Amino acid sequence: MSLFFDCNAASPLRPKAEAAWLAASREAWANPSALYPSALGARALLEESREKIAALFSCTLGRIVFTSGATESNNVFFRRFEKDAGRGACCAVSAVEHASVSAAARAMFGERTLVLPVTADGVVDVAAASERIRRERPVAVSVVAACGETGVLQPWREVARVCRECGCAFHCDAVQILGRLPLGDLAAQCPYATFSAHKAGGPRGVGFLLAPEEDNLLHLQHGGSQESSRRAGTENVSAIASAAAALAEAVAEAASTLPKEQARCRDRFEARMKAFGATIAGEGAPRLPQTSMLLLPKHPNLAWVSRLAKLGVECGTGSACSSGKSAPSPVLAAMGVPASLAQRAVRVSASLTTPEADWTALAEAFERALAELDGESAASNVVTID
Amino acid sequence: MSLFFDCNAASPLRPKAEAAWLAASREAWANPSALYPSALGARALLEESREKIAALFSCTLGRIVFTSGATESNNVFFRRFEKDAGRGACCAVSAVEHASVSAAARAMFGERTLVLPVTADGVVDVAAASERIRRERPVAVSVVAACGETGVLQPWREVARVCRECGCAFHCDAVQILGRLPLGDLAAQCPYATFSAHKAGGPRGVGFLLAPEEDNLLHLQHGGSQESSRRAGTENVSAIASAAAALAEAVAEAASTLPKEQARCRDRFEARMKAFGATIAGEGAPRLPQTSMLLLPKHPNLAWVSRLAKLGVECGTGSACSSGKSAPSPVLAAMGVPASLAQRAVRVSASLTTPEADWTALAEAFERALAELDGESAASNVVTID
Repeated sequence: MSLFFDCNAASPLRPKAEAAWLAASREAWANPSALYPSALGARALLEESREKIAALFSCTLGRIVFTSGATESNNVFFRRFEKDAGRGACCAVSAVEHASVSAAARAMFGERTLVLPVTADGVVDVAAASERIRRERPVAVSVVAACGETGVLQPWREVARVCRECGCAFHCDAVQILGRLPLGDLAAQCPYATFSAHKAGGPRGVGFLLAPEEDNLLHLQHGGSQESSRRAGTENVSAIASAAAALAEAVAEAASTLPKEQARCRDRFEARMKAFGATIAGEGAPRLPQTSMLLLPKHPNLAWVSRLAKLGVECGTGSACSSGKSAPSPVLAAMGVPASLAQRAVRVSASLTTPEADWTALAEAFERALAELDGESAASNVVTID
Repeated sequence: MSLFFDCNAASPLRPKAEAAWLAASREAWANPSALYPSALGARALLEESREKIAALFSCTLGRIVFTSGATESNNVFFRRFEKDAGRGACCAVSAVEHASVSAAARAMFGERTLVLPVTADGVVDVAAASERIRRERPVAVSVVAACGETGVLQPWREVARVCRECGCAFHCDAVQILGRLPLGDLAAQCPYATFSAHKAGGPRGVGFLLAPEEDNLLHLQHGGSQESSRRAGTENVSAIASAAAALAEAVAEAASTLPKEQARCRDRFEARMKAFGATIAGEGAPRLPQTSMLLLPKHPNLAWVSRLAKLGVECGTGSACSSGKSAPSPVLAAMGVPASLAQRAVRVSASLTTPEADWTALAEAFERALAELDGESAASNVVTID
């Protein structure tokens, strides 16, 4: 069994979430829009799940629109304002967004997509962002809660306030913070916010968009009147019930001492990495407790990832959605990390319940991988000379 | 245990589909875009599932774009041509489409949505449709394979041929035919086609759009490069593997003698209904073997549905997505059924494996419901007079 350190890309389904999915699939598979008893049962489970999730976010039921996941939620926020884009309006996104935010913004707003700059630590520069928003008045602004690649927490609260003052719609991609840190008043502060279930131990293919109840221009899909006519399509009751079970557990973990304990393990791990010359992207900024974006002193990241896999450790090079691409991470580029160094970036991300022993084993695997890669590299130099 | 006769709205998850979902959730939960062994395993399962489905449709792998279901697939077909709509192009849809087709068309094309008329039996009038398409040259045309409400099979093949000749993009919503009748060469004849898993015993929240491999303007969601950059977002591997298992079974059933056996049961049931004055919408047309849209001689459909539920039979009033709405079905209106009669419409739809005994019990339940409703109505008349 290998050590899994890519939890920002995926996480296993929690047993309670699996049980909830199975129970719903067996007992609540009827179409919740129909009118007979089994359909009413499915509808009751759907609305009960919505209530559970609303309670976790301290928000009203009418703010939750279930979707097929974070990419859909991020996309529809910009699509909601596409008509304004057609009339010449601009939007703004931070320089450290997930591709499903930045690419959606560009698809709808084209070159009228302002990019809010970040510091060398990967934190959105609030002063510069505020000035830009006040001057350009974008109709839609999106700032991620926590960067999935570096784990750096963003000043979404401050940007949300400026947007409120300027009458700009503010959206927060909060996927990576869910189940990692307490949500606080995020739902109250952000008119729009995106969440996904599968990164918090829920099933794939389900997420939700928090939206203002009074927004009557939100039509994610056209057809039936599901989700208060905001997203047509038969509701995925099994996945939604499963998501509610997973989120309850994940949010409770995030409110416990687990984040602090993970941060301690992560910091000890990083100290060992720094001992052989690695640097940590965003080290000076507040970060998610279980994420570390390593900039390694030598060897390309694909060589690291492949060597670590042989040693039984699974971790990635950054956003899984961009893995395998040769272009360096736009997040690291925005932080001023040179492309040559970005090509030595490896991200490790644990769950909140990853045991300390796994972090120790991870450090040992990196040290051994370094020795092996060094050895190979020396051997291949000999061959070259020969 | 009640008798379920609303399979055109939902069907239970097949045991093999449940097993496939569970196995994938436990063993293939890694993100298929990552590069380590467990991620490669998830990717292999994803592509193996695509191969299984492509084999059922005799199409190439590159034609299948997995989506969150039929509503998404139907919507994105029209979204694909939205830019043309902005330049004044029109689209055409039959008068008997599901709301996720007709509402999507109207959302993108507004009043430039031509409606292709149907006969009194609910069949698209091929001569009128051809003439309209040749004259108006819509950029996008959609005709359903089988109407979900009446079960009437449509001349999609003929309309597809006219579209090919005129250079119009043709799309077929084939949700209701999958697992009910052999697909034949549907994939080859239709450049675009929509399918959903859950109506064929697969899980909710997954479907696919067949699209031409060479269509490079199809971007369902923006972000990562999943689904050949046609739909960004982490792939729902568990649901896709489960869908592949369900579809294999459903397609095999559709190719067996089961459809004929169902049609025989259904016809016997309809004869008993006609005996007390019911008529059958679309009776004169070729229909799905397990669907019957009854136009009952008296009592409103909601009274029937509620009375039948008390007698242990679950069936609907038409498209579940439109249930509970007071407006009569647009499908029946297009067939010239007067609103007063449409309000007495009850749809029954079985699975291909519904036993004959269930059809007999269904007929008995209708007869008993009629007697009870007649009795109540007489009693309430007495009260009124009194």
